[in-house]
Amino acid sequence: MIDGPVTIDGDAFGAALLRCHDTGGRPGTVFEIVERDDGWISVADIAAYLAPIEEWTDVERQLCERATGRVLDIGCGAGRHASALIDRGLDVIGIDPSSGAVAVCRQRGVRAVRGDACRPPAELGPFDTFLLLGWNLGLLGSTRNAASVFDALASVAAPGARILGIGADPHGSTDPDHLARLDANRERGRLPGQFRIRIRHERLATPFFDFLYCSPTELRGLTEGTPWRVTDVLSADPSGTYGAVLELRS
Amino acid sequence: MIDGPVTIDGDAFGAALLRCHDTGGRPGTVFEIVERDDGWISVADIAAYLAPIEEWTDVERQLCERATGRVLDIGCGAGRHASALIDRGLDVIGIDPSSGAVAVCRQRGVRAVRGDACRPPAELGPFDTFLLLGWNLGLLGSTRNAASVFDALASVAAPGARILGIGADPHGSTDPDHLARLDANRERGRLPGQFRIRIRHERLATPFFDFLYCSPTELRGLTEGTPWRVTDVLSADPSGTYGAVLELRS
Repeated sequence: MIDGPVTIDGDAFGAALLRCHDTGGRPGTVFEIVERDDGWISVADIAAYLAPIEEWTDVERQLCERATGRVLDIGCGAGRHASALIDRGLDVIGIDPSSGAVAVCRQRGVRAVRGDACRPPAELGPFDTFLLLGWNLGLLGSTRNAASVFDALASVAAPGARILGIGADPHGSTDPDHLARLDANRERGRLPGQFRIRIRHERLATPFFDFLYCSPTELRGLTEGTPWRVTDVLSADPSGTYGAVLELRS
Repeated sequence: MIDGPVTIDGDAFGAALLRCHDTGGRPGTVFEIVERDDGWISVADIAAYLAPIEEWTDVERQLCERATGRVLDIGCGAGRHASALIDRGLDVIGIDPSSGAVAVCRQRGVRAVRGDACRPPAELGPFDTFLLLGWNLGLLGSTRNAASVFDALASVAAPGARILGIGADPHGSTDPDHLARLDANRERGRLPGQFRIRIRHERLATPFFDFLYCSPTELRGLTEGTPWRVTDVLSADPSGTYGAVLELRS
């Protein structure tokens, strides 16, 4: 007996984002449904991907102010950060594995192509700034994948390049189920906050992918032996959300 | 290989409803996640279960005005209809299979017990009015289950009793995937709008249960040979939502 319904593989994230954008981008109409492989499911208003700069967190605004030169917005979603930086005169390219997200970006005047952090578009670089905003430090995924991401970004980075990222520290929770999950990861030799998630929309489901909740200390550990180092941490949120600035080692 | 995450069996609906109620009942905070066995997933704001009468649809208000005597609110949820009828001086008892829903009702001053439409609380009857509002005509489930429900309600009905229900007609959709599902049901000898759904919240999932989308004509068909007949249909919604009044045959 199969546990759980049989979904259709596809771009659930992009389908939801397109639906939201096509119907006016109003909050409360289309939701991002995130499902973990341990059965945990959560919902967030996908209109947040279209939010103007006034509705961002302070950490997001502070990080964006540090963007310079040619910018690669990794996991750009609907292009809300890219759009604000373009308004400031920066040269921004978005990448996202979701074709629906790329389509929404283009409709909003943001240059975007399909891609992910392990395969940045070398032909469009080199880049001075890499954005991993919107908790996209989670796309580092795992210890092994993070090393691949750091190498790949360094290969298309200009001298002095920076990564501006937002992460989520998993260690502040007191929920027993969550803490048990962290312990189980430790026992398997993983970082405690390594989760597998997928996005669902109507009958569509993306493949499961690794998503990493890591503390600033764990992030520093991930950069050891890589071309990057953490130079600043902006902490503004008791929920564990923080901003991080990484610089290419010279 | 199991398709889909391994959920924990439990009162997902009640857990979500309790969370919403306990955190102030504000819209936009807790969501009801409904998953069909064909992988379709949808989200609705669970704060709607707490909505005051001013926020109801016209059909809901019109049906509630027809409630008289002792009322059994079937699938009472957070007791929004029961609460409004109690304010009007009616004697109302709610039943819901969700212990969390029953708890929320009691916190809101609505008398409620665990139960479902096939097992109404005979010791608390007889009842003059049965409520199947909030699309709860869907709880008729299937041809076979509908017959059980109609018999069970008749067994605890006072002479002249009425069922006041809200249903959803599945035949207005033009979505090819939806229409294919209706056809597949017909081929299997089911009513076209018979679906299996479950509710999810965090790691919890309810069991799958039958939920029936039926037109007013199909509803009339379901009452044939039962102690009930459809005496009125209130149609007010191009989405296919309608109100129905059923009376005990004399």
